[in-house]
Amino acid sequence: MPVYTITTAASTLDGQTKANLAAAITEIHSRVNHVPSTYINVVFNELPADSVYTDAQPAQPLLINGWVRTGHPDDETSQLLAEVANAATEVTGIPPHRVLVIIQNSPAHFAMEGGRALPNPGEEQAWLAAQ
Amino acid sequence: MPVYTITTAASTLDGQTKANLAAAITEIHSRVNHVPSTYINVVFNELPADSVYTDAQPAQPLLINGWVRTGHPDDETSQLLAEVANAATEVTGIPPHRVLVIIQNSPAHFAMEGGRALPNPGEEQAWLAAQ
Amino acid sequence: MPVYTITTAASTLDGQTKANLAAAITEIHSRVNHVPSTYINVVFNELPADSVYTDAQPAQPLLINGWVRTGHPDDETSQLLAEVANAATEVTGIPPHRVLVIIQNSPAHFAMEGGRALPNPGEEQAWLAAQ
Repeated sequence: MPVYTITTAASTLDGQTKANLAAAITEIHSRVNHVPSTYINVVFNELPADSVYTDAQPAQPLLINGWVRTGHPDDETSQLLAEVANAATEVTGIPPHRVLVIIQNSPAHFAMEGGRALPNPGEEQAWLAAQ
Repeated sequence: MPVYTITTAASTLDGQTKANLAAAITEIHSRVNHVPSTYINVVFNELPADSVYTDAQPAQPLLINGWVRTGHPDDETSQLLAEVANAATEVTGIPPHRVLVIIQNSPAHFAMEGGRALPNPGEEQAWLAAQ
Repeated sequence: MPVYTITTAASTLDGQTKANLAAAITEIHSRVNHVPSTYINVVFNELPADSVYTDAQPAQPLLINGWVRTGHPDDETSQLLAEVANAATEVTGIPPHRVLVIIQNSPAHFAMEGGRALPNPGEEQAWLAAQ
């Protein structure tokens, strides 16, 4: 269901760090937002050094953009943000001021997986059982 | 007006398949959402094998993210989703459980093309005629 | 806080043009949306020629997608759009009909930077002072 897109300048993260960060985000999202880990996608978009700017200068931020279904309780989203941001720093060693985590959402019925519209938050079990 | 961003692991799709999928999505979006095909963008973001994870493991999902203007009727969005998801499997051979289609939106006046704010859904003809 | 993602076919923009466009967008966003330039990210996603389609044909659009916090006044967003679109053409020489600028947003508390949820629009100074 969710997709996390992590954008960095090339060589910011090595292969093992990418795998570790994908694992950390998958664990956090599954637990906080009640989604089986098999439905969680994490992708890394690594761009050339002259393609990433902060303050109009080439920079090395860690930009994490997660797409989720609309309707998760706000306190879960706050927890998700805090845990993902913490994990990003812990796994990568990049300090918090270079880590930006953004959650975007769409209504569940604006997304389809396995040929079916996604369930609203809280209705995951019925959706999974109906497969 | 719309932009479809398709994310895969490298070598998931060959060049002809990308062209065919772009053509299928363009035809569907133009017909269902009433947008001339000249305004429809489809881009492919192909990432290294160690940059795409599902369930914390390297994986080969087909992640399709479409940005559209807010305000299309819900039944059109449902039809769009179903047709795009079906076409994705038909064109690429990737089974539905690895295909995720997400529609995101912004108000039409939060987007600009050709130097003009986009029209609301249903007002395309007047906008096109006023060019 | 904001992230601008600019998608093009490879070789559409050279290194200096990317730097100039990043600088122009950073200046505009900082001024119009009242964000210190140190918090503004601009990234370029340059894709192979056979990965970018408009009207189902390989094409060279300039696709600019900005993520901002929800709640900026609509007139500021309109000004932001117009100035970014103008700058894009001025800096790159790409004509307006190939330039698409899209603004997306999430509530400020759906994003975290430096370990803190972002401030709502208008509350930036207090947030910055509390660091």
